Amino acid sequence: MGNESILDRMETPADLRRLTPAELEQLAAELRSVILETVSRNGGHLSSSLGTVELTLALHLVFNTPKDCLIWDVGHQAYSHKLLTGRRNLFRKLRQTDGCSGFQSRIESPQYDVIGGGHAGTAISAALGLEVAARRRGDDARAVAIVGDGSLNCGISLEGLNSVEESGAPLVIVLNDNRMSIDHNVGALPSYLNRIISGRAYGHFKALAKTMLRKVPDLYRSVQKIEEATKSVFLPGGLFEELGIRYLGPVNGHSIPDLVRLLSAARDSRRPVIVHVITEKGHGYAPAAEAPERYHGVPPFDPALGLRGSGRMTFSRAFGETLTELAETHSELAAITAAMASGTGLTGFAERFPERFFDVGIAEEHAVVFASGLAAGGMHPVAAIYSTFMQRAFDPIYHDVCLQNLPVILALDRAGMVEDGPTHHGIYDLAFLRAMPNLTISPRRMKMNCGRCCIGRWR
Amino acid sequence: MGNESILDRMETPADLRRLTPAELEQLAAELRSVILETVSRNGGHLSSSLGTVELTLALHLVFNTPKDCLIWDVGHQAYSHKLLTGRRNLFRKLRQTDGCSGFQSRIESPQYDVIGGGHAGTAISAALGLEVAARRRGDDARAVAIVGDGSLNCGISLEGLNSVEESGAPLVIVLNDNRMSIDHNVGALPSYLNRIISGRAYGHFKALAKTMLRKVPDLYRSVQKIEEATKSVFLPGGLFEELGIRYLGPVNGHSIPDLVRLLSAARDSRRPVIVHVITEKGHGYAPAAEAPERYHGVPPFDPALGLRGSGRMTFSRAFGETLTELAETHSELAAITAAMASGTGLTGFAERFPERFFDVGIAEEHAVVFASGLAAGGMHPVAAIYSTFMQRAFDPIYHDVCLQNLPVILALDRAGMVEDGPTHHGIYDLAFLRAMPNLTISPRRMKMNCGRCCIGRWR
Repeated sequence: MGNESILDRMETPADLRRLTPAELEQLAAELRSVILETVSRNGGHLSSSLGTVELTLALHLVFNTPKDCLIWDVGHQAYSHKLLTGRRNLFRKLRQTDGCSGFQSRIESPQYDVIGGGHAGTAISAALGLEVAARRRGDDARAVAIVGDGSLNCGISLEGLNSVEESGAPLVIVLNDNRMSIDHNVGALPSYLNRIISGRAYGHFKALAKTMLRKVPDLYRSVQKIEEATKSVFLPGGLFEELGIRYLGPVNGHSIPDLVRLLSAARDSRRPVIVHVITEKGHGYAPAAEAPERYHGVPPFDPALGLRGSGRMTFSRAFGETLTELAETHSELAAITAAMASGTGLTGFAERFPERFFDVGIAEEHAVVFASGLAAGGMHPVAAIYSTFMQRAFDPIYHDVCLQNLPVILALDRAGMVEDGPTHHGIYDLAFLRAMPNLTISPRRMKMNCGRCCIGRWR
Repeated sequence: MGNESILDRMETPADLRRLTPAELEQLAAELRSVILETVSRNGGHLSSSLGTVELTLALHLVFNTPKDCLIWDVGHQAYSHKLLTGRRNLFRKLRQTDGCSGFQSRIESPQYDVIGGGHAGTAISAALGLEVAARRRGDDARAVAIVGDGSLNCGISLEGLNSVEESGAPLVIVLNDNRMSIDHNVGALPSYLNRIISGRAYGHFKALAKTMLRKVPDLYRSVQKIEEATKSVFLPGGLFEELGIRYLGPVNGHSIPDLVRLLSAARDSRRPVIVHVITEKGHGYAPAAEAPERYHGVPPFDPALGLRGSGRMTFSRAFGETLTELAETHSELAAITAAMASGTGLTGFAERFPERFFDVGIAEEHAVVFASGLAAGGMHPVAAIYSTFMQRAFDPIYHDVCLQNLPVILALDRAGMVEDGPTHHGIYDLAFLRAMPNLTISPRRMKMNCGRCCIGRWR
């Protein structure tokens, strides 16, 4: 970075707050450059952290960290946060022995990573707990949950949203909307968010008001009154307003001044707020911005050349190809994934049999219960979910598949120890699945990190 | 029931469809009487099944069962469904050896209980699977999910709602709104449903339209046009419309003709539909209608006298009293329950320390992640959840509590074998909790069915 590096001078977030707007822009460029350089050397999560550079700066500018806590959902997008909170040296050894974790980590930074993690959907509930605890101890410390649009439809996030209003805490939720989870987003909530962005969710009132005012100027006051009364349904984000959460946005997630303005309003609100921030995954590195899912998690690569296909046969690829082959002759075979079509090797299946392929988003519980419904309806569903995330479906596997004795196949990818660390190890699958009735387990270890296939009943 | 009993003539739901309106009313009374008599003799779930008598009749009248499937969420409200589908004799031995299960059961009736269950929140996902499978095999069979308002905010239900629109299946969801789960409902979704019922969610447009038409008659056409364009936000249920699900209702859940009319419209809709049905838990038996939570699950009792308090010391009562006592001197102690305040013995705690008591509704995952947030914020949360439902929180226990090494106490009620049967046995808790790092387990068996306390870290 040379002698002129601003990042090198940043010991704590307080240093940030003394920078000029131009210096902040330069700092954003430096952060992107360090992230790209480190991730291309060590491997890691690239697209997401490139997308949150300005958001991270704005959050640390507006909130009084470390007194206020930032809870990044999953935490794979928090590399800038790490670089700005005293972990520049540690970050060089990202995902290496004695180096930096790929996620938020309490061990690594008890001050700035108050709660760690790695699985999606927990930030709202955890931040709500922190915010409520602060109120109970008479403290004005704040907690901010930063949630991707792909995590929002996860059951835990939605349970959290349902609880915010009643808690009385003015929680700030930042919705980091890059219109992606790892793959492209699915479901009604993301589609709703897209309608907001494109203005289709709130254009009606403006058109009505304009027409009316032109025709009947004396209606002005009553229109104003009505606008106030129906604010929640007319303004964008009515769905959140109906849940008792104020909606602010959408805002350009790569404009630091715009972000600072809206986040300050959110911080000062007495009601819970959701701030809808539009970011571009992979922003600032063209190959990643063009194919963000390919650059979500990457092995080491040359940034000048971009990622090359490896052509290597992996467990996931073999699984996906075999399943697609079987589906040619088995018309009842269906494949389900929870936002991991590429990771589980199912992209080819999805293209060949779109009507029998179901990506339900980050919703492992629904994935497994839905599979039980398909099976009861005569199909043979295969639910392909990483071992670590299948833990979310412990109860559905028991209650909806095994007790019902239904022919559902669970295919577990990434079993055993994995590079992502403790949050992602698939170390419990055999133990908890062995205890289930009516389940046949076929472990097939190909090689370390390549996964294991757990197969239920196929009849 | 004597010789005049209509119920005795009901061999299959087809018999129902030949009855006159007056005979249907008499049948409803007979069903209530058999349910009250059997449950007061054998014990079981009373209030919920008393509330769904007319709804059950209407569903079997409108849908072509058994070709069409009814999936009752939890299934404890499905006693009328059992009585009308060839299980009258079996029902006499409700919850006894060789008798009827307390929930839907595939073993008991493969035709009418296509998917069994006992845990909340799975009906939407399971019915969606059935409906999609029928479409894929070119069949016009329908699946209906009947979901209580208390189950709707469960993460799986919400993940399911997010998936309905994209599936393309015209799923019918019946929202059985009795404004209760086991205890009174909590959270933003139930509060939204209440606003719909009381008319506050859609009164604005009517008022606006009236004023405008009085003032400017020639605006009539443009108002109509606007009404059409903004239908989803003006009509009740805009939240569901935003998720791509048509909203019908609210409708009186004790009027068979009203129910038949609305359910027929739902059946014939080409889009997914949610039918908002308002029922009274315990309807038709005054003591249960007045105290529906007391009569949710009951031991044998004399219907003429009603339930008497037992005064017996149970694990739950001892736990609740001890926790309340401890909270007097430990200001950082908090209690969390997932819709089971009375079942876990926490009613007294809730009254004494409302600001440190959190009932999050049927949302076990959020409960545990929220506890981790409270703990990270310096509180000592105790999450009291039945053993069988704690299975839902397998991943949050590992990922958000144990890996973070946070002082959360999990108190598991109803461990071991329980009267409700396989879906409710608490048989996995020790096995899966033993595998977790940083967790201390203190099993304390009081006596069969009284539960066991699993305690994490308190420091």
